[in-house]
Amino acid sequence: MKTMGLSELALVSPRHFPHADADARAAGALDVLQRARIYDKLTDALGDRVLTIATSSRQRELVHQTIDARAAAFRLIEAAAQHPVALVFGNETSGLSGDEARLCQLWAAIPANPAYASLNLAAAVQVFAYEIGVAAGAGVPVARAPPAAVATHDQVEQLHAHLERTMVHVGYLDPAQPKRLAKRLRRLLARARCEVEEVNILRGFLNAVEKLRRS
Amino acid sequence: MKTMGLSELALVSPRHFPHADADARAAGALDVLQRARIYDKLTDALGDRVLTIATSSRQRELVHQTIDARAAAFRLIEAAAQHPVALVFGNETSGLSGDEARLCQLWAAIPANPAYASLNLAAAVQVFAYEIGVAAGAGVPVARAPPAAVATHDQVEQLHAHLERTMVHVGYLDPAQPKRLAKRLRRLLARARCEVEEVNILRGFLNAVEKLRRS
Repeated sequence: MKTMGLSELALVSPRHFPHADADARAAGALDVLQRARIYDKLTDALGDRVLTIATSSRQRELVHQTIDARAAAFRLIEAAAQHPVALVFGNETSGLSGDEARLCQLWAAIPANPAYASLNLAAAVQVFAYEIGVAAGAGVPVARAPPAAVATHDQVEQLHAHLERTMVHVGYLDPAQPKRLAKRLRRLLARARCEVEEVNILRGFLNAVEKLRRS
Repeated sequence: MKTMGLSELALVSPRHFPHADADARAAGALDVLQRARIYDKLTDALGDRVLTIATSSRQRELVHQTIDARAAAFRLIEAAAQHPVALVFGNETSGLSGDEARLCQLWAAIPANPAYASLNLAAAVQVFAYEIGVAAGAGVPVARAPPAAVATHDQVEQLHAHLERTMVHVGYLDPAQPKRLAKRLRRLLARARCEVEEVNILRGFLNAVEKLRRS
């Protein structure tokens, strides 16, 4: 929850709470656990919520409208801008009962391998929390590249010209038929999106090569 | 992995393998574990791959191009149509080393709460596997509603007319000013997208109401 920017945890009739094991596993997210609200019944936990979504991977009779995790995240974020919302998970062993799921307005499921669809509770919570974080735009990619000086079109073209000249110089390229190899190199550098520094390094190398003579 | 349709696991220098604990935790996905390939070094595991993406949440110097988990999933699925690919995770304690990450072509990160960005290894694997499953279109929402007979426009309009008539009948609606309340009911039913059965139930109720007389 905390990794995805969520902080409001409600627990319905927990067997043990608080508990030293839970505290230990919470690691740096102990604050979320300590602020958890505890309820006897699910309906009490949902009392002030305007949008309630039950998570489930089970087939049921007479199902509510069921949407996928991504759609659920967008609905929750949209509604949460104005009112409190809830995403409801069952316990690890049996999930939500039919009666519990029917307390909610929508049902949501994680698209999964039909042959093996049952995620652990922790895994399911992580996927939903991730989608909510993405929908909220709250998460930022953690490892960002510092802004690099990307080479301009002209700089890349000068590199291509330099490459071609050098390959002719060393006898690798037939000056009468330079195009095919050049096209391939063009594809390579197009994918690479060179930085200025890299262009300079390559051209420095080519300069050095051009000073050599064929024996 | 298996919940998201992935089956090819490679382990680099595992401390213990196979291990009874791992088998027990694999539950219904023991086949994935048993088919795992074991390598001494990461570079050997990557040998025949044409696209390799390292996962990381750490800042490093001189970073490779870093994309988010969703973009990484699309790249992997796109490339995997033709060639084997790899998504590389470090161990739980320290993640990938810089040298390990630099063996890969791209780096990928899960957008996360900047104040608490460190997912457990299992959680990170689940999120990436989920995005890959979604990108592959392999997963299907598990709980689908059976195709319901949704009411047509005409059926809904007949319900509206019936409602209005009945509300006038019971004296709840001013026949001279029926529009405002009717508009609100229209919004409600628009959101509800009635099924035929539900329209029939409501109209049965209205029929019963119309048989009553005001005292």
